[in-house]
Amino acid sequence: MGPAVRIYMDHAATTPLRPDVLEAMEPYLTEAYGNASSFHAEGQRARHALDEARATTARVLGAEPAEIVFTSGGSEANTMALVGAALARRGGGDRVVVSSVEHPSVLESAQFLARLGFRVTELPVDRAGQVDPEVLAAAMREGAVLVSVQVANNEVGTLQPVEELCRLAHEAGALFHTDAVQAVGLLPVDVNRIGCDLLSLSAHKFQGPKGVGALYVRKGLELERLVHGGGQERSRRAGTENVAAIVGLARALELAAAAREGHTRRLEALRDRLVRGILGRVEGARLTGHPSRRLPGLASFVFEGGVEGESLLVRLDMDGVAASSGSACTSGSLEPSHVLLACGFPADLARSALRLSLGPPNTEAEVERVVEVVTRAVERLRRARAAETA
Amino acid sequence: MGPAVRIYMDHAATTPLRPDVLEAMEPYLTEAYGNASSFHAEGQRARHALDEARATTARVLGAEPAEIVFTSGGSEANTMALVGAALARRGGGDRVVVSSVEHPSVLESAQFLARLGFRVTELPVDRAGQVDPEVLAAAMREGAVLVSVQVANNEVGTLQPVEELCRLAHEAGALFHTDAVQAVGLLPVDVNRIGCDLLSLSAHKFQGPKGVGALYVRKGLELERLVHGGGQERSRRAGTENVAAIVGLARALELAAAAREGHTRRLEALRDRLVRGILGRVEGARLTGHPSRRLPGLASFVFEGGVEGESLLVRLDMDGVAASSGSACTSGSLEPSHVLLACGFPADLARSALRLSLGPPNTEAEVERVVEVVTRAVERLRRARAAETA
Repeated sequence: MGPAVRIYMDHAATTPLRPDVLEAMEPYLTEAYGNASSFHAEGQRARHALDEARATTARVLGAEPAEIVFTSGGSEANTMALVGAALARRGGGDRVVVSSVEHPSVLESAQFLARLGFRVTELPVDRAGQVDPEVLAAAMREGAVLVSVQVANNEVGTLQPVEELCRLAHEAGALFHTDAVQAVGLLPVDVNRIGCDLLSLSAHKFQGPKGVGALYVRKGLELERLVHGGGQERSRRAGTENVAAIVGLARALELAAAAREGHTRRLEALRDRLVRGILGRVEGARLTGHPSRRLPGLASFVFEGGVEGESLLVRLDMDGVAASSGSACTSGSLEPSHVLLACGFPADLARSALRLSLGPPNTEAEVERVVEVVTRAVERLRRARAAETA
Repeated sequence: MGPAVRIYMDHAATTPLRPDVLEAMEPYLTEAYGNASSFHAEGQRARHALDEARATTARVLGAEPAEIVFTSGGSEANTMALVGAALARRGGGDRVVVSSVEHPSVLESAQFLARLGFRVTELPVDRAGQVDPEVLAAAMREGAVLVSVQVANNEVGTLQPVEELCRLAHEAGALFHTDAVQAVGLLPVDVNRIGCDLLSLSAHKFQGPKGVGALYVRKGLELERLVHGGGQERSRRAGTENVAAIVGLARALELAAAAREGHTRRLEALRDRLVRGILGRVEGARLTGHPSRRLPGLASFVFEGGVEGESLLVRLDMDGVAASSGSACTSGSLEPSHVLLACGFPADLARSALRLSLGPPNTEAEVERVVEVVTRAVERLRRARAAETA
């Protein structure tokens, strides 16, 4: 373990559950234990909580309650969107289009569809990680059943022009899915403003509980089921409803939406201070992702001069700073980030990646301290490397 | 709502979370919020809890930790077993065999495979709901990639001769999966005694939390993934690990295993008292399922003379008794139970089904009261029906 006082700057990986969200969940972890599909009073109490959570979730997203399907998290929602929509439209084009910087749950779902005979097109991105709408327009000439491009990237924070991409997908007769896992709770995400047919979110990214997410499914849209079984979630997702977690998701979403504007400004200010500090203090530090069209709390860097990302994280952790190289979902992998490679970074630079993701609990003093710690750590690693190669 | 004092006899639908299980979960709902895939101290604390929970779960089932894949529940585990095993073995027979009394998550998964081109055989059962091993042996002459038969039925409680069925499946070169969702926590379930390749369980059936289950996957067995994404669960099930729920699953499993013998005897005694009471007091009541080879806490009946199951449940609920007609997963459906039809009951008798499932909190006094309430309710419904048709 690191020093007693820790600084947590890995909110893109997961966030602490808000105490008031846990409080809202507690009845459903104790006396209100009924199965929401049961007929009796115990079941109906759970059903009522589920209905309320669905209405709240729908309201925040600009959707209707019947358009919300609760899942076990973002990866399930993304898999369900891609596999479910594509399988329900087999023969209607048999091609799916994704960006090359999507989360592994989207990319791997596309690869699964490829194993089932679908054609998959991965759209390139520019240096900032953005999909050029003209690139999508060109790709759509071949036709497709589904396009999936994220709202915001989990590793470099870049926002995509999803409204425009969605319009282009629709003009070509394709469905549009967007992975909004990193955006919901931080940005105003409205399904009608985007125009999307499918949208994924995950509660633990906005101070809700782990193990629960949702998929928005536009009214009338048919999906093949991913999890088979009973008639829960209007026969779109089987399994006894995780009432406590769903109540937590809705409460966290509602609270995040209410606090969003002030919260966003505060995170942006902290992020800009962090970016200025690190770019100003650390020689050879480069910001990854888009300079301005990026998530409010996400600062991401690479470091020239052979800094090894894993070693950097070890040092930061020892100095009390929790950060990551990119995605927690691919940590442990020795491969350089597919996102940074897609942005055109060479593999050795991609291996030096550092992601610092801020959340509501972070302070200016923490930002200053992290700038200090990162600066020192990078210098040490470079000195150690110089000594090795001397 | 019913009267203030309620009697909950729907433990096969879901059980109350044990307070000591919630206590074990609490650190992971509060300060220990790290992502178990994160590199830093916060992540490693979560990882450590996950490793311990996996070891505990494996130990209780007689498995190795690497053979346990945590899922979001029983339906996901069943879907993953059937779809994942069949898709990974395409071309190797392209047939799956299931019993006709499986849970909808097994039957619907088989139907999904049928839509992908697999052949599906549903094995008939006898009047008690059991699969005759000779029937399976005959079915295996055509070859199959996978056989799935449950340990215990969720509607009528019948236990299947899974050891023998597993041996027959293996002799024919097929994998064997068993849905042990209703059995784990109540019966001694050991993967090596059964000999199965895949086994599903769900925590909320044995006083653990909702939204978490596990699939045992025998070492070396390849499955196509159901939920795609990161490398969690040794790349077998993507998604940020639901640490609190997984810790709860393991703790509940451990506690259930420790208390099992005394608990089972107590439940059997209560169940037998309930069965004797209802068969003795209610004219035309018939026990469904196997008279002796059945779940310790599950009593299930049909009532002759046109008793309508839903009306019966309304009356019981008003009298403070939470029960069900069969599966919570199919409640709201007007179709008679597929399990009772498979057991040879005519549709009108199947529609009168009542399931009373006991759990640790139930008492003898409650059993007496429920016998009383059921007797009165059935009599009233018959009188009302007689008045209508008079």
